[in-house]
Order: sequence, then structure tokens, then C-alpha cells
Amino acid sequence: MSDSAAAALRSKPDSSIARTVGAVVEKKAGALVSMGNTGACVAASTLGLGTLPGIRRPGIAVTFDLTGRPVTMLDMGANSAPKPEHLYQYGVMGSVFAQDCLVQGAEHPRVGLLNIGEEAGKGTGLLKEALPLFQGSSLNFVGNVEPGDIFENTADVVVTDGFTGNVVLKLMEGLAGFLLQLVMRELASHDVRWGPEALAKLKKSIDYAEYGGALLLGVTGVVVIGHGRSDETAVSNALRQAARALDAGILAEIGRDLGRAQPERTDA
Amino acid sequence: MSDSAAAALRSKPDSSIARTVGAVVEKKAGALVSMGNTGACVAASTLGLGTLPGIRRPGIAVTFDLTGRPVTMLDMGANSAPKPEHLYQYGVMGSVFAQDCLVQGAEHPRVGLLNIGEEAGKGTGLLKEALPLFQGSSLNFVGNVEPGDIFENTADVVVTDGFTGNVVLKLMEGLAGFLLQLVMRELASHDVRWGPEALAKLKKSIDYAEYGGALLLGVTGVVVIGHGRSDETAVSNALRQAARALDAGILAEIGRDLGRAQPERTDA
Repeated sequence: MSDSAAAALRSKPDSSIARTVGAVVEKKAGALVSMGNTGACVAASTLGLGTLPGIRRPGIAVTFDLTGRPVTMLDMGANSAPKPEHLYQYGVMGSVFAQDCLVQGAEHPRVGLLNIGEEAGKGTGLLKEALPLFQGSSLNFVGNVEPGDIFENTADVVVTDGFTGNVVLKLMEGLAGFLLQLVMRELASHDVRWGPEALAKLKKSIDYAEYGGALLLGVTGVVVIGHGRSDETAVSNALRQAARALDAGILAEIGRDLGRAQPERTDA
Repeated sequence: MSDSAAAALRSKPDSSIARTVGAVVEKKAGALVSMGNTGACVAASTLGLGTLPGIRRPGIAVTFDLTGRPVTMLDMGANSAPKPEHLYQYGVMGSVFAQDCLVQGAEHPRVGLLNIGEEAGKGTGLLKEALPLFQGSSLNFVGNVEPGDIFENTADVVVTDGFTGNVVLKLMEGLAGFLLQLVMRELASHDVRWGPEALAKLKKSIDYAEYGGALLLGVTGVVVIGHGRSDETAVSNALRQAARALDAGILAEIGRDLGRAQPERTDA
């Protein structure tokens, strides 16, 4: 969370996001669903709800439904400078989420670490330090995965730092929009007719908001952050996602799995 | 360059890449063009040719022609852990390349720094430290740019670290291939006919190899690295790219601009 976000929040205790967090704290609401500013929502939730025992930094989990089998990626932008153990905790939380909170939940989800090559020596210092934490855990860890693997269904959960994750998210949005425009122009120039509903279907297939928005994992509460451009379907999907996470008891599951996956922890 | 690449190189002094580097060193060849392994080519070129005066780490520059005006990005994978001054040097080298070595060269190219927001406080520590180096230089610096800006023509040169750059490159390849497959399936299901040449045209518009491959900037020689899957057009484009870089005298230009853009340097 940035300092400016925290400062803005303190100066506006009556903002809609601060009041919604308050409703969760006072148990008037079971979950928080916001289509507002992501940074403000992360800041307000982290400050107001606190983090789960043992969790240092919350992460934003986004689920893509590209191949007919969903892929959950995290962190997509909550924390640009994570430590290796934060990445490991994202793996645990993402694994719980992928197993218990998705319509097509995976049994013992395959967890991968986003890298620029499969070999152990690849990538940043952060990734080299995080790798043994995953390898030594009880997660169903499948090793380093490459960006193209998101479209190949080689992992159910893909862990990355918040900077890279946010680049991935924004690049996918930008490239998809660009390519679909190109396709439409190309079709028009060939006098090929193609209905707007087919285009909408394509757009939806890469739009994570259609799958229920983003979950902020690691705070003491269920928080779903939708896209600012969400339509009514995306909003109702986000509400449904929040309800599924509540029903699954995701907070308790994460706490249990954090303890199990890394037995030496005593504070989880 | 990874240790394993350097070791592999030393153990194989007669490999085709080592001999091609040798031909450039002995001035039997003016430039090196390879469609082989990128890591091996970077390692062989860096070891064999050395770096330009003042340049610490070479960077891989890739040019996309998406909007009718080319965008050059670097580093796309030579150096996963650059320092702020390396990023700055990528900006200078990318600027020279975009001005002098492209068919549609830009006058005083606009240089942006890839980030997850336009504000100065955004992103990693590396980016926060690199920002003032760009701001205090004579580059035509347009500030932080976001991943979606690659498709919006807001900068001619986009600077990033080699890890993020390589993620961007591989994600673009993966997503483009995935989306085009989706489009073809969707078209077929609507009984819409669309020729393979239209598909090929679309593929080419996002394929950097079609624009002449990747240039390794910062070594004492002209080095072009093509995609392993290059067809004859891509190979001839890569050769043409190498010839243009030679004709433009890119090595001398980079040396001059490094001195000019950062006047306090004495070793350039």
C-alpha cells in the first residue's frame, strides 16, 4: 500500500470505502465488494480489517477463464516489492482459493511461479530465493512457469510479484483490446459480417471481471475488487464470488493451510 | 548473462555463434545475425565483442509495429537485475536506435519508462531511482508509461528491466496466439470464411521478427537476434536491420549520445 493511499484514507474517514470496511468490522456486512479505486480499496481493507495471522502482505488474486479451466494469478498489484516469503504465502492463499472458492475448483491445485524460463537459475533474485520455499512446502508445486503457460493450462495458480502481475494484467487488457479492433477492421475490409455478440463473447473470455473480479487475499475479511468499467453482469459475478468465498470459509482455510504447508511456523 | 551460458560458451569455442563473433572481431564480418539461442548469443557477443565505453550491461531492443508508428522496447531479456543507470543507458541507446536505425525513424524519440502507473511514486525501487536520471537528462523523456501505452503510441522508446521485458514479450506471443485461435474458432462456428492470408497478416502485425528481429545494444558490434521460428522473410528483415544499423553508424552515435545526454560522464 502506498503512503499516499493511506494518507488519503485517514483524511477521509467518511468515504464510501472506509464506511464499507467499517460495516465489515462491525459485522453488519459479511464481505466487501467494491468497483472503486483498487489502491484505495487495498489500503482501506488492510488498515481497517488487518491481515490474517502470519500474513505480512495481502495479495490481489485474479482468475482468468481462458482454456475452460480457470487460472488464478496473484499478486496482481497490491505489493510491488514483496519478499520471498510473501510470494510463498501468495501460493498458499491462491491454492486455497483455487480449491474452495471457484465454480470449477481444482483438487490439490497445481501452483507455479511466474518466471522467464523453467530452469531453477532463471529470473530475479526474489524468484531464486522464493523457489526453495515452494519446493520445500506441501503445496502441489509444479515449478517455474512462463507467461505463455497462462494459455496452456499447466498450472491452476500462478504466483508473481505485484509489479509483474500488474504489468501482466494491463498488458492483457491492452493487447486484447488492440487485437480485437484489428480483427474487426480486417473482417470489415473483407466484407465479412460478424455480430457484436460474438465480439462480446470473445472480450468476456479474457476479461477477469466476468469471472468475479479480483479477491484481496490475506486480510481478515472477504474483499472483492471489481473493475471500474464493470457492467451489471460483472457486478453480480463479483457479489457471487464474495458469497462463494464466505461460504467456503476461506479465511479459516487459509489459516489452516498456512500452518500445514510450512510446519515451522508458530504464529499462524 | 548467466554463468551457465558463459561456461557453455568457453567449453565450445568452435560453436557457430562463437565463430560468428570471431568473424566480427577479425573484421571479416560487419555484423552478427543469429536465429539461434538468445542467451548464448548475448553471452558470446558480450564476451567476444566487449561492451561500448561507459556501457555496463547490453540490452535487447525489440521493435513492434502496432499502430503504424514503431515502438522500440528494451531490455527484453539480456539483464534480469539491472541498476538504475543501466535503465538510463537503455534509454540513450534505444533513442539512438529509434532515430537512426528504423525505416520510420522518429525525430528526437519520445522515451518512456514502463511502470504500473504514471505517478512518480509508482512501481519498484529500481524505477523510483531511475526516474530522476531520465528527468535530468537531455533525452526527450515523457515519464512513466503503462503497458497499455504500447498500443497507444505515447512513446517511441519504452525502457524496462530484462525480466519484465521478457515477460511482456512472452505474454504478447502467448496471448496473441491464443486470441487468434479463439477468433478462428468463433468465425468457423458462425460459418464465416476468412482466408489464411488475413490471419497471417494479423500475426505479422504483432510479430517483432517481421520488423527485423531484436538488436543487442551496448556491445562493440552490430548484433541482431532473430526468433528461432523465423521464416525467410524474417531472416531477410533481420539482415536488413543489421545493414541499417551499420549504415547509421549506431555504435559511434551511441557513444556520442551517452556523453551528451549525461554531461558528467568522463568515460564515454
